[in-house]
Amino acid sequence: MLKLFVLNLLLLGSIAALPLKESNSCQLSEDLLYEIRSYGPIVHKIINEIVHGSFAGQTWQSLADLTDTFGHRMSGSQQLEDAIDYVVREMTQEGLDNVHTEDAGVPHWVRGYEKAQLVEPNRLDLPILGLGSSVGTPPGGITADVVVVESFDELNGLSNETVEGKIVVFVPQWVNYGVTGEYRRLGASAAARKGAVASLIRSVTQFSIGSPHTGVQQYEEDVQKIPTASLTVEHAEMLLRKYRRGEKLRIHLEMQDENLGMFTSRNTIGELEGLVYKNNSVVVVSGHLDSWDVGLGAMDDAGGVMISWKALTYLKAMGLRPRRTLRAVLFTGEEQGVWGGSQYYEDHKEHGEEEFNFFFESDSGTFDPLGFGFSGNDEARCIFEEIINLMYPLGDMQVTSSSSAGPDLSDWSSAGYPGAGLLNANDKYFWFHHSAGDSMLVEDPVALDRCAALWAATAYVIADLSVAMPKTVLKN
Amino acid sequence: MLKLFVLNLLLLGSIAALPLKESNSCQLSEDLLYEIRSYGPIVHKIINEIVHGSFAGQTWQSLADLTDTFGHRMSGSQQLEDAIDYVVREMTQEGLDNVHTEDAGVPHWVRGYEKAQLVEPNRLDLPILGLGSSVGTPPGGITADVVVVESFDELNGLSNETVEGKIVVFVPQWVNYGVTGEYRRLGASAAARKGAVASLIRSVTQFSIGSPHTGVQQYEEDVQKIPTASLTVEHAEMLLRKYRRGEKLRIHLEMQDENLGMFTSRNTIGELEGLVYKNNSVVVVSGHLDSWDVGLGAMDDAGGVMISWKALTYLKAMGLRPRRTLRAVLFTGEEQGVWGGSQYYEDHKEHGEEEFNFFFESDSGTFDPLGFGFSGNDEARCIFEEIINLMYPLGDMQVTSSSSAGPDLSDWSSAGYPGAGLLNANDKYFWFHHSAGDSMLVEDPVALDRCAALWAATAYVIADLSVAMPKTVLKN
Repeated sequence: MLKLFVLNLLLLGSIAALPLKESNSCQLSEDLLYEIRSYGPIVHKIINEIVHGSFAGQTWQSLADLTDTFGHRMSGSQQLEDAIDYVVREMTQEGLDNVHTEDAGVPHWVRGYEKAQLVEPNRLDLPILGLGSSVGTPPGGITADVVVVESFDELNGLSNETVEGKIVVFVPQWVNYGVTGEYRRLGASAAARKGAVASLIRSVTQFSIGSPHTGVQQYEEDVQKIPTASLTVEHAEMLLRKYRRGEKLRIHLEMQDENLGMFTSRNTIGELEGLVYKNNSVVVVSGHLDSWDVGLGAMDDAGGVMISWKALTYLKAMGLRPRRTLRAVLFTGEEQGVWGGSQYYEDHKEHGEEEFNFFFESDSGTFDPLGFGFSGNDEARCIFEEIINLMYPLGDMQVTSSSSAGPDLSDWSSAGYPGAGLLNANDKYFWFHHSAGDSMLVEDPVALDRCAALWAATAYVIADLSVAMPKTVLKN
Repeated sequence: MLKLFVLNLLLLGSIAALPLKESNSCQLSEDLLYEIRSYGPIVHKIINEIVHGSFAGQTWQSLADLTDTFGHRMSGSQQLEDAIDYVVREMTQEGLDNVHTEDAGVPHWVRGYEKAQLVEPNRLDLPILGLGSSVGTPPGGITADVVVVESFDELNGLSNETVEGKIVVFVPQWVNYGVTGEYRRLGASAAARKGAVASLIRSVTQFSIGSPHTGVQQYEEDVQKIPTASLTVEHAEMLLRKYRRGEKLRIHLEMQDENLGMFTSRNTIGELEGLVYKNNSVVVVSGHLDSWDVGLGAMDDAGGVMISWKALTYLKAMGLRPRRTLRAVLFTGEEQGVWGGSQYYEDHKEHGEEEFNFFFESDSGTFDPLGFGFSGNDEARCIFEEIINLMYPLGDMQVTSSSSAGPDLSDWSSAGYPGAGLLNANDKYFWFHHSAGDSMLVEDPVALDRCAALWAATAYVIADLSVAMPKTVLKN
């Protein structure tokens, strides 16, 4: 039946090249299938205009404008607040609807003077980056013997006497961000629990050219807060080799980093208001505007910000306004622990079932797009997959399963709201992540255009469909 | 005739698999061809022992020992002198012959506190590395407007008024090390000639993760010496974009770098003394022991040092001693302008024709070996190519033409002495070159073994042949 239906479609011109993908478990109505497939021409038009037409290259230029003008945009910094004001002005000037900000508290941690030096058995400066929320050292720093371990298990196998008063250096081999990142997130408290006075980690990346990579860490409540920083992979591996040879290592560490309490920042919002639905059944496209204080935060996450913002701008400029409102939400304080995202959920969850239809987030790079990681119930996924089949002018876009549409949306995903995160060719993402290498050099204009096109076209179809995306809201 | 000869060889067992390569212009005698090809079994044995036998992995370990123990080894530094003493001790302990050092003066330039900051139109710290021999800024630094150019031509097209009192930032696109490196080597004087007060360059590399790359520069004699440093590629490109947009850029630059005059360092020499010839017809294998003061100088050039040194060590341990002396020369002061190499030529050139037979240098990485860049007359090349045909257990090793066997040997090559430099799969060499990324992570144990095997086997055959390598010495 479906095949006959598609055969008919083959006669209809621009829909003709539609590749047939059948999902065995999906039983969408013929009407809905027909409706979704009828978006083929408009999807073509959106993709074509963004990738080959008047918008080609504009996303990269806008990204360069933003990052070159404001540099990195750390939570609590003037640069971030200036960047927020700039986006509000630009969105307003572009004629987006309901441009505004919504307050969100973020921790204000500042990096001070940071220095580490191997002082025994030989002297060598060790470039470091303090980890977000780390306390500083006492004035004048700490000089202590070193214990090097490759895992939490190895640390926990040591006697407290072995670790007490020492600096623990964690040199775990790269597995993936989730697994290896635990040493960054939890290493300091694990070391402090054994009596260490500071901890250092191998930067969380598979590949390095001498740059340390920062990132947030979290102290456990009942443990001493000790200073903690990342070393380059090069130096961490060197320290491990020296330690394994039996050399007695001693490091001087000085960090004037400070926690300055909470700061009121803002999530930044602009809309393409729906023709039919205004403040209900909204489709959110999102990224986070804050970054770390090294590099320019072009990849993490100005790229995600820019495709979300510009998806609306381009659709508006093309005269395309879907039935539902498309809302770009540019979160603040993601890097320090998803503060803007959490606040947004708190502020909107009460009427969430009415207010929201679908959530997109891009926060793992805007390299060449590969499809989406989908989060939601099977019914929503069936519809979503049919929509993604329309994206074939961008190549074969895949839909994989994900527990969350993205870090800023995890509350929504956990609550049962459907959403999707951008999949992209980000094999090298962690080469640059949270380091001085996060710059415009990582961003390719064509890949960005293709991401923006996928983002705009998919969001447009979902926002314009006659039916809402099914949700299974577990709590309210 | 040659083919019949080879057919006979095919019956001789271990030489049987020898691939036939005919060089049209080569007319080596049958006796010599037979002699060279008879080295097949011993070449196999050397390669096998180093790549698969008891020495497998040892070169990497020795390299790690050296660089982990002493760190980087800048000309004039205690680390370099300590490393020289260490190599002398180790070579002596290994039983190499005539282990000694020969004095060579090197410039003693030291990096002091270095800081650059974009102060207008926005504030952004710009990591820099002063270029070798750069003067420092006046105390308190320089704050000046910025002129960004992409080429010498663009600079020279500007009026002096446009450049006077400014900081010139060179942002040439990467072409190759020779071409793009000219901006590092000569940029400061070109800028000073137009009245600039300082100059900065885009680091000389195709690829970057936020690290600046240093290197030597040279002031022209009749021009003001102005401070000069490298920026990261990321920041240089950003400054170019901002400048092209018409933004007024202002940079604060502070460099406490100093030239401390000349320092007496040492070339380090060890030998496997020849069975027949002692201090004449020597085959030199070489690299340079000094490095830059960032990273660990594992790639540039402890790798070249290690395969040269260990080639002798491994041959000796295998009980192989060729007719001629194999001499490892580990030069000093290469990075500051080939000071050790030049001194060695000055000290040995008078009796060079008697003293030397052939020169090897490895100073462009010890990634997987690809063959040799040969420098010398056609007759020598014919013999060399026949020898390299024996190396097929390592894969198809190529012989290309080169004007020099290597930077430390260029005087010898220019004078007509035959030599060869290691070709290797160094496409990413400049990713790490002169930066914090030059570490053991760049070095692969198997690739190093294969380089050491090629080095040892080729040097052994040349040193043991009944005939000397032909030379065409132009001056003495």
